[in-house]
Amino acid sequence: MADSGFAEPEAKRQRGGRSQRRDMRLQGGQASKRPYIVRNLPTYDILSDESLSRIEATADRILAEIGIELRDDAEALRLYREAGAEVTDISADVWNVKFPPGMLREILKTAPAEFTQHARNPANNVRIGGKNVVFAPSYGSPFVMDLDRGRRYGTIEDFRNFVKLAQSSPWLHHSGGTVCEPTDVPVNKRHLDMVYSHIRYSDRAFLGSITAAERAADSVEMARILFGAGFVDQNCVVMGNFNTTSPLVLDGVTTAGIRTYAEANQGSIHLPFLLGGAVAPLTTAGMVAQGLAESMASCALTQLVRPGAPAILASFFSSMSLRSGSPTFGTPEPAIGSLAMGQLARRLNLPLRCAGNFSTSKLPDGQAMQQSMMSMMSAVQGGANYVLHSAGFLDGLLSMSYEKLVMDTDMCGALHAYLDGMEVNEDTLAFDALAELGPGQHLFSTQHTLRHYETAYWDSAMDDNQPWETWDEQGGIDSARRANSRWKKLLQEFEAPPLDEGIDEALQDFIARRKDAVPDMWY
Amino acid sequence: MADSGFAEPEAKRQRGGRSQRRDMRLQGGQASKRPYIVRNLPTYDILSDESLSRIEATADRILAEIGIELRDDAEALRLYREAGAEVTDISADVWNVKFPPGMLREILKTAPAEFTQHARNPANNVRIGGKNVVFAPSYGSPFVMDLDRGRRYGTIEDFRNFVKLAQSSPWLHHSGGTVCEPTDVPVNKRHLDMVYSHIRYSDRAFLGSITAAERAADSVEMARILFGAGFVDQNCVVMGNFNTTSPLVLDGVTTAGIRTYAEANQGSIHLPFLLGGAVAPLTTAGMVAQGLAESMASCALTQLVRPGAPAILASFFSSMSLRSGSPTFGTPEPAIGSLAMGQLARRLNLPLRCAGNFSTSKLPDGQAMQQSMMSMMSAVQGGANYVLHSAGFLDGLLSMSYEKLVMDTDMCGALHAYLDGMEVNEDTLAFDALAELGPGQHLFSTQHTLRHYETAYWDSAMDDNQPWETWDEQGGIDSARRANSRWKKLLQEFEAPPLDEGIDEALQDFIARRKDAVPDMWY
Repeated sequence: MADSGFAEPEAKRQRGGRSQRRDMRLQGGQASKRPYIVRNLPTYDILSDESLSRIEATADRILAEIGIELRDDAEALRLYREAGAEVTDISADVWNVKFPPGMLREILKTAPAEFTQHARNPANNVRIGGKNVVFAPSYGSPFVMDLDRGRRYGTIEDFRNFVKLAQSSPWLHHSGGTVCEPTDVPVNKRHLDMVYSHIRYSDRAFLGSITAAERAADSVEMARILFGAGFVDQNCVVMGNFNTTSPLVLDGVTTAGIRTYAEANQGSIHLPFLLGGAVAPLTTAGMVAQGLAESMASCALTQLVRPGAPAILASFFSSMSLRSGSPTFGTPEPAIGSLAMGQLARRLNLPLRCAGNFSTSKLPDGQAMQQSMMSMMSAVQGGANYVLHSAGFLDGLLSMSYEKLVMDTDMCGALHAYLDGMEVNEDTLAFDALAELGPGQHLFSTQHTLRHYETAYWDSAMDDNQPWETWDEQGGIDSARRANSRWKKLLQEFEAPPLDEGIDEALQDFIARRKDAVPDMWY
Repeated sequence: MADSGFAEPEAKRQRGGRSQRRDMRLQGGQASKRPYIVRNLPTYDILSDESLSRIEATADRILAEIGIELRDDAEALRLYREAGAEVTDISADVWNVKFPPGMLREILKTAPAEFTQHARNPANNVRIGGKNVVFAPSYGSPFVMDLDRGRRYGTIEDFRNFVKLAQSSPWLHHSGGTVCEPTDVPVNKRHLDMVYSHIRYSDRAFLGSITAAERAADSVEMARILFGAGFVDQNCVVMGNFNTTSPLVLDGVTTAGIRTYAEANQGSIHLPFLLGGAVAPLTTAGMVAQGLAESMASCALTQLVRPGAPAILASFFSSMSLRSGSPTFGTPEPAIGSLAMGQLARRLNLPLRCAGNFSTSKLPDGQAMQQSMMSMMSAVQGGANYVLHSAGFLDGLLSMSYEKLVMDTDMCGALHAYLDGMEVNEDTLAFDALAELGPGQHLFSTQHTLRHYETAYWDSAMDDNQPWETWDEQGGIDSARRANSRWKKLLQEFEAPPLDEGIDEALQDFIARRKDAVPDMWY
């Protein structure tokens, strides 16, 4: 790790009001000074080397014997073929690509094990890979939800609100990408407003568009306006989140987008979205093997385009309701799969995106938080480095929830303390604390307690830990309703981080020109 | 492990109706056949041997240099002293007891690493220790809660209801003990009704009374009526859950109770309830060291009374709100502490009770389940063998919740699947499943899917995984309300497991005689 993992103090970031600064101080010591987490807690390794080798061998066999189907991208085909893949034509624009065992691993050696994604506020640069953990809000929901208005299609106003709410939380580190689909903006122009919203209302790193190669290019172009073209060529400032078409297909829109980001030396995430029984085997070992195979094939393309371009191995595991066939999230089998994926990523020496705050619940209720916690624990325990879907996820990813977003960010705060693990030294072992007053005496007034009480424990901004009587007198509000009040307050108090006026104008100019150049498309 | 971990099939247990049997079949394969869990998932080991040794050395130093204060039990004092402890008189009935380094570890070598607690239905015998995990409902709340009637003092009717609800769940393994305080029964007679309720409405193992030595003796006596005196002398059929008086005090009521269970060769749990900053250091390493010291001192007494008597090392960690000083539950620091406690218990070769479904929430809401899951994960990942408080815990243990009980038992079901871990073999690696139809083809109809789809995934009885539209048409019910309907249905359908009439009469006789012998006491 070239980087220390500690950037400039929290105080440099834009936040609202004194009470929030007080909250920051109360909410943990070290944690609040980091723009991302450097884990002190070891990863949870659940598989033996032998089992991991069997999964890797199966992934290699899938790639060598079944192969990947590549569609509509002759340039990607050329790159794979020249690197040694065996190609069989299926039709004029569809090919089966088989990778001899070991070929992809060799190619992936040029991909960085860790890299920095720059934010427009350098204090918010994030380091992805190694012992680092970066939380970003949820991604890709067409609907949005809140307790007042229920479920509805997302708009650009919702999008901006989610960017603002994420920026307001000290426990997220990255602004994410499609925080919801802004369905009131034409499909072919959405990406411009989305990227602009991230730049305007957040000063953290963000994801660009991937839905078409030209939209990916626009995203990179806007990053160049923000950071300067020379800087962008040498540094990662934007990333694209690319899905394989499981099982075992790479479509041309995806591969062209991957090539666009890699050519520009920008980052990319290579995500098989595996729903067991539908697009992957029902058994977890098989699902993990397939995920590894698909993500390796996708990641490798970046290195063929530009060796050294940042690439993130990824997987998204979900299970299936055996009664209805509908996908289920936040269940135990995918959590186990994610832990194994962490071990495989470390053996491959690549950064990992995996799991998140998944749930199928339609409300920010007990089910939502139980499922979320099971899934999110697998991300942080398994050693995922970039955790998309860290906040807001409900309804099986179909809806982004205002309340769940603030509940999840609070949980992300708790996970900062969790990932600090346990320090064992003379001070923390606290023999003197017990010796000072001896058996039967409370420790409230010991020197040790006085020295530690401000920083010892994570202090939630959302949980009600009061006595029942106090809570009842205050109206007996449940956590979803508290979250409802909180997101409104956060939006009201939000102040956008300052943005250079010249850059803002240049971005708006670019967007206007790009919007004028083509007619609106709505599908 | 002398025992295979698999007892007679689930079908032998009493359950209501065909739909429940279908649920059982759907809810996992192997899992439903076990009366407890045999974990396949490795434990989560977070500390190095060096850190563990430092914690152990600190515990030894606490015991040798600060010592334990023993109150009002000259017989316990005699036992400790004769075993080598250094005693200093503080007053006529209070002594400081110091244990030379290594003394307690030596004594604890006669305690079994694993033992069986027998249930009146042998199919429900549980094996405690090693790779086994046993879930029991929450313990000790004076209040009860449900969504209809809110919070109120518990009664013996509530107590029976909780025993019935626990018995109804295939995902609990043990009936627990004081599932709520039956405050409408005199304090000195409560234990008789509580033990009887466990015997009458459950056919699983249970905990007896610990609030006075004679009540502990009554509990053992009732177990003798149920199992026969000879069997009880040779087998563990009842256990007591004993709290140390932290910091570093053992009171005579507790030690007399511990001696009563041990003399009868019955099990005991030795639990420091450590609230950091109040009765333990705020720093987790120190809290764990103290917990280890207290629990070892308490456990060792059993071996001085009767070598080989079952004893369970235990700890209950909680943190403190830095703003109000009130205890907090389900927070990250205690979760980390519990993982470390698991490692220490394994080094000591003793069974462990640790953590549970803790929460400070006053409703079965998002906060409740998020906190519960963080705490419960530490129990199962850390390798706890007996998890009291697995279901029902709300309000910082002041209230037992009807809704949370059924939500938690469902979560316990998910943890059965979780603890199965990942099997890696040719079938689960599922190369053939992908090869059968190849890239781009759904796997719904593959041989592999057809072979596995009934057992592949945990199927929750509580979670709503339906599409939003279906859920909305059905009324848009949150998980707490679903739980409200569910516990009512379970109580309505409940059928008590058959109990030999002669035994029932003998028990009722014994209770009547004991109740008549002394006047009611209400404090």
